[in-house]
Amino acid sequence: MASRKSKVVDVHTHMYPPEYISILTSRSTIPLVRTFPSQQQDDSKPQDPRLILLEAEIPSLQLALSDPSAPIPGRPLTSHYASLSQKIHFMDTHQIDISVISLANPWLDFLTPEEASGPLPAKINQDFERMCTLHPGRLFFFATLPLTAPSADVILKSIESSKELKHCRGVIMGTSGLGRGLDDPNLLPVFEALAQHNLPVFLHPHYGLPNSVYGPQQENYGHVLPLALGFPMETTIAVARMYLAGVFDAVPGLRMILAHSGGTLPFLAGRIESCVLHDGVLLKKFKEEKRRTVWEVLREQVYLDAVVYNEVGLKAAIGASGEDRLMFGTDHPFFPPLETDEQGEWESVGLNAQAVRKALGEGSEGAEGVMGGNAVRVLKLVEE
Amino acid sequence: MASRKSKVVDVHTHMYPPEYISILTSRSTIPLVRTFPSQQQDDSKPQDPRLILLEAEIPSLQLALSDPSAPIPGRPLTSHYASLSQKIHFMDTHQIDISVISLANPWLDFLTPEEASGPLPAKINQDFERMCTLHPGRLFFFATLPLTAPSADVILKSIESSKELKHCRGVIMGTSGLGRGLDDPNLLPVFEALAQHNLPVFLHPHYGLPNSVYGPQQENYGHVLPLALGFPMETTIAVARMYLAGVFDAVPGLRMILAHSGGTLPFLAGRIESCVLHDGVLLKKFKEEKRRTVWEVLREQVYLDAVVYNEVGLKAAIGASGEDRLMFGTDHPFFPPLETDEQGEWESVGLNAQAVRKALGEGSEGAEGVMGGNAVRVLKLVEE
Repeated sequence: MASRKSKVVDVHTHMYPPEYISILTSRSTIPLVRTFPSQQQDDSKPQDPRLILLEAEIPSLQLALSDPSAPIPGRPLTSHYASLSQKIHFMDTHQIDISVISLANPWLDFLTPEEASGPLPAKINQDFERMCTLHPGRLFFFATLPLTAPSADVILKSIESSKELKHCRGVIMGTSGLGRGLDDPNLLPVFEALAQHNLPVFLHPHYGLPNSVYGPQQENYGHVLPLALGFPMETTIAVARMYLAGVFDAVPGLRMILAHSGGTLPFLAGRIESCVLHDGVLLKKFKEEKRRTVWEVLREQVYLDAVVYNEVGLKAAIGASGEDRLMFGTDHPFFPPLETDEQGEWESVGLNAQAVRKALGEGSEGAEGVMGGNAVRVLKLVEE
Repeated sequence: MASRKSKVVDVHTHMYPPEYISILTSRSTIPLVRTFPSQQQDDSKPQDPRLILLEAEIPSLQLALSDPSAPIPGRPLTSHYASLSQKIHFMDTHQIDISVISLANPWLDFLTPEEASGPLPAKINQDFERMCTLHPGRLFFFATLPLTAPSADVILKSIESSKELKHCRGVIMGTSGLGRGLDDPNLLPVFEALAQHNLPVFLHPHYGLPNSVYGPQQENYGHVLPLALGFPMETTIAVARMYLAGVFDAVPGLRMILAHSGGTLPFLAGRIESCVLHDGVLLKKFKEEKRRTVWEVLREQVYLDAVVYNEVGLKAAIGASGEDRLMFGTDHPFFPPLETDEQGEWESVGLNAQAVRKALGEGSEGAEGVMGGNAVRVLKLVEE
């Protein structure tokens, strides 16, 4: 990437601390980490354990477990996932000044209620804080909440403890909430506590859509359909459900950063708005309750990352939320380059940076904001 | 809408001929038409039968059948669905010069193999031809194919018969194909025949997504989630599956007009492309087979209607396919106004026309093209 006047910030970049990797390694259902010593594939060194995350990957996992000649499932768990020095090397390679690191999906969604109430969630957040402390001014983080805990008190306490961590700048969250989605009224106290502590929610997909929607030939298409379509559609549905449930009206201080430029929300916002206007029952309700429009939510309560890989999508994201609400991201360590050295520049990063240049003009004020200025301002990314 | 230099064309506008209505009235499973004389609701006159189309509407249908105090399901089957004079009145009210009418979803997808092989499909297409003949120069149509017929020959013959009808300008199709989706290799002869006859496919959603994705509170949100999100996501998945299966490469003459500005394809095309570039197996295959990119498909084989209700989405559609490939539509008779006379101007039409003006500038060459010039040129909308 070209040199810039202001700092470059990556708000979408994941880490698996060693403790988290050891949990995944001990598991027998997804998410899990497993080694397939007798199997080998183009993109994997034999010593690399494989990370299997998605429901869409279960068939290939089962096949590989029963047939040593089957393709190796998931993705290689390279040092990019767990090594802090690798993260710093990646940042230096791409002239990224600051990264706001977060646990990758599926976070702690799979913990039993007992595990969620135990010491593990706090340990993982403290591990993120420790990593940030090792590189002052360069690392901040989004904390993870123990959403499967048996009582909301555990979650609220976790928010308070996270707020105490010097480098915490928000929380990362999937779409399951307490198990019934983000439109669950029981989640409102959590959103209220986050709003009260000025902790934005970085909303990130994991569950995608049911495999059935991809049809009988899906095994021919790699992970493209669940990753390219399922992920952004999941995000869009989750936010639309929150919108229709009135969550943004009920918690006006709630701020959300939506992964992958909002999924597809910028493109579909007009259709959502029109569908509300053309539904008699909802229209009446929205008028009586003086609900805000989707556009008001997008421009006042939502931020979007700039992880959309092309200027067509990025311009729509800017059109929806405004160039002062977009924030560059890389999705590191996912989408490593396949044909060049992964210690060098990553094509996936280049695509997202190029989209910003093409959408806003190289070196423009808007581009500088998206590449880092907005994140520094919104997330207060200065070492105290 | 303001006056225009070139003709205004509506490419997304549906009709249910009387024969089709009588089929729906005779059915006991969706799609169906039914009267609920003891129930009444704000948006319905008691004499209006109700049209129940979507899987998402099944729970409210069942409730209404068992409980006379329950809300009336579906939508009123007003004269807008079946009356030709009503269609012409709607066109005149909105200064629409030409409409390319098509059967609404779910078309003939529910016919038994016997019914699909019988005279009904041809009768419906002939009924559309008859309607067009009554208003020379103002009406053309997209034919419907008997896709559930037991042999492809029936479908291929239907394509040939449709081509003989003077006002046929393409076919409307859902995403089910022969029952296994549009990436089904058995559908290739159908696409080849359509390409050979220069009949574009107007691809339109119906099935949406499984209700489970909308969560336990979906009954509070009317039809917004399945209509605003399920429909465009279904279209996007269907086209992405065709793309990954290589259908556009296998049938280079295939032309598709995608409903609702491509669902979400313009926004997600960058992510689809990046996911292919980062999947080792697919990348190799695409290189070996010299597959075209998503962007090439969008700019060379795809047209998009301009039914996206806001300029943010419309600009992305234009960015993806080009302003010479967008075509205005209304989605009439769906989304009637709730607070004004439905014999007057429809807000849904105004939103789509406004999006064109805002995206391209009132009266600009681009706007004139989207409002009608492109459709006249691409679909050859002149009376022979």
